[in-house]
Amino acid sequence: MRRVLTGFRPTGKLHLGHYHGNVQNLIRLMDQYECFFFIADWHAISTEYSDTSALRENTREVAIDLISAGLDPEKCVLYRQSDITPVAELFLYLAMVAPVSWLERCPTYKEQVVQLASKEVSTLGFLGYPVLQCADIIIVHGEIVPVGEDQLPHLELCREIVRRFNFLYGDYFKEPEALLSEVKRLPGTDGRKMSKSYGNAIYLSDDPDTIRKKVRQMITDPQRIYRTDPGHPEICLVFDLHEIYSSEEIAKVEEDCRQARIGCTQCKDLLARRIADSLASFRQKRKDLLEDEGRIEGIFAQSREKVLKIADKTMADVRNLLKL
Amino acid sequence: MRRVLTGFRPTGKLHLGHYHGNVQNLIRLMDQYECFFFIADWHAISTEYSDTSALRENTREVAIDLISAGLDPEKCVLYRQSDITPVAELFLYLAMVAPVSWLERCPTYKEQVVQLASKEVSTLGFLGYPVLQCADIIIVHGEIVPVGEDQLPHLELCREIVRRFNFLYGDYFKEPEALLSEVKRLPGTDGRKMSKSYGNAIYLSDDPDTIRKKVRQMITDPQRIYRTDPGHPEICLVFDLHEIYSSEEIAKVEEDCRQARIGCTQCKDLLARRIADSLASFRQKRKDLLEDEGRIEGIFAQSREKVLKIADKTMADVRNLLKL
Repeated sequence: MRRVLTGFRPTGKLHLGHYHGNVQNLIRLMDQYECFFFIADWHAISTEYSDTSALRENTREVAIDLISAGLDPEKCVLYRQSDITPVAELFLYLAMVAPVSWLERCPTYKEQVVQLASKEVSTLGFLGYPVLQCADIIIVHGEIVPVGEDQLPHLELCREIVRRFNFLYGDYFKEPEALLSEVKRLPGTDGRKMSKSYGNAIYLSDDPDTIRKKVRQMITDPQRIYRTDPGHPEICLVFDLHEIYSSEEIAKVEEDCRQARIGCTQCKDLLARRIADSLASFRQKRKDLLEDEGRIEGIFAQSREKVLKIADKTMADVRNLLKL
Repeated sequence: MRRVLTGFRPTGKLHLGHYHGNVQNLIRLMDQYECFFFIADWHAISTEYSDTSALRENTREVAIDLISAGLDPEKCVLYRQSDITPVAELFLYLAMVAPVSWLERCPTYKEQVVQLASKEVSTLGFLGYPVLQCADIIIVHGEIVPVGEDQLPHLELCREIVRRFNFLYGDYFKEPEALLSEVKRLPGTDGRKMSKSYGNAIYLSDDPDTIRKKVRQMITDPQRIYRTDPGHPEICLVFDLHEIYSSEEIAKVEEDCRQARIGCTQCKDLLARRIADSLASFRQKRKDLLEDEGRIEGIFAQSREKVLKIADKTMADVRNLLKL
């Protein structure tokens, strides 16, 4: 079975955007591939180095949410990046052969330096972000990397670094392949892309009441001023989410809106219920995990052992290739 | 006792320039400080990544030469950088807080990029060289770093990185101090600074005959054309070395030259004998070490254990500070 690898930033609780944009896709992959999933706590430092106080808790939260959402630790290897310290050594070796110019040209680097200017992220670690990603992938011989379009340049850079390494020291690493996943850009409650930093996210762990309150705030068809006005689902955020959560009766939802048979509040409450219902089993699993004190650390410990075995072998080979 | 730390590039055999410029100084330090000396095989990769074939052998050679020259492994900790893998992890964390602009401003970086343009050294690893140096130093809580003037900017950068780390994560590391050593710039056989890459070096391990041949090639006073012409020691390379190797009878050497009592060849052979004699015990120790197959690896293994104990403790602390 070919090996898939991907990492998650420990941003804390997962929201619907994460679920539909990424997690759902990964759940499918678990049946077709050997899946290595890691929480990238080291990567988080590269942009959040000035305040790492939430790092440990966020890493735990993401793990709990991922498992509750369906990433079964029996069917995948779910590990914590910082548990695999040989990655840092491989990062160092790859850094030795990675030209600064390649990294500076990376569009995400340029963008983020501008966007996050106030955070002073133009550090060596941030510049070397794609090199660390490359080390993450190849240390376990990841073959397939599910990526969104915005991550493609990083993977291309990773492949270039692998080629350079192989050229210099011998044909050892396979170039990982991108598995371009069609990312559904889920709108947040304000219509922008759902994102923690925009404050427009519905979290997988939100209780039904919180979900209802958040959905209630959503903007609907601005032309529908009175309850009796017919609505236009094609420009309504709530309808966008109905398409996901009420797909079986989407024709009815659409008609009810166009015919003004239901009002927006009613329509929103229906959506909120659907979302909350779809998350019932998630909430239960999450509750169980939260109550089971040592469970997450236990999973990490088990994965750590498994991944270290592979990583240590890789590093022994790499050291030989480098004549160290 | 305060802890001194310094590293040696594994450039292969040591020459007289290394000895007088550095090793002699370190031998003195062993009596006053707890000395940590390492062979920087990782650093060597940063400029020599395209050909690492000699790395292992050069590392061994340097260790043999250092010990033979007087760095007693009973009185110092002599270790191999790549044996201390936690350094790579610390490098990663320091990289996260080290602004690229600090590193680009480093004069040695600018210089080397120009000088070594053909080697394409402008890699992430080369840019991060001072950060790796910093990790080397602070992972064992090195307090004092003997440096030549050209290395001062690196140490200043190291201190800046330490301050930044301490500011962000808590006052943990001490800022290492520079111990500025007066470096004698020993001339090579062609008058330029003695250096392996100039091909003008006399190696500590050269046998008396090789030394004689090399000294014979040295340029002497160009105004002394005939054997009977009086010489000018103040512009003579051979005399520069006599000042070191014949210091007890330097007045006589000078007079013999000025009075044309001896010819240049005779004067050179005298110098060659003095150099060779001064290296007699070095040659013997070196021979013994070469014959004792497992000795160097044994020293490295012992040091590795000692240094790892310190480094592991440091990294446990650092991970706590970073909230990993």
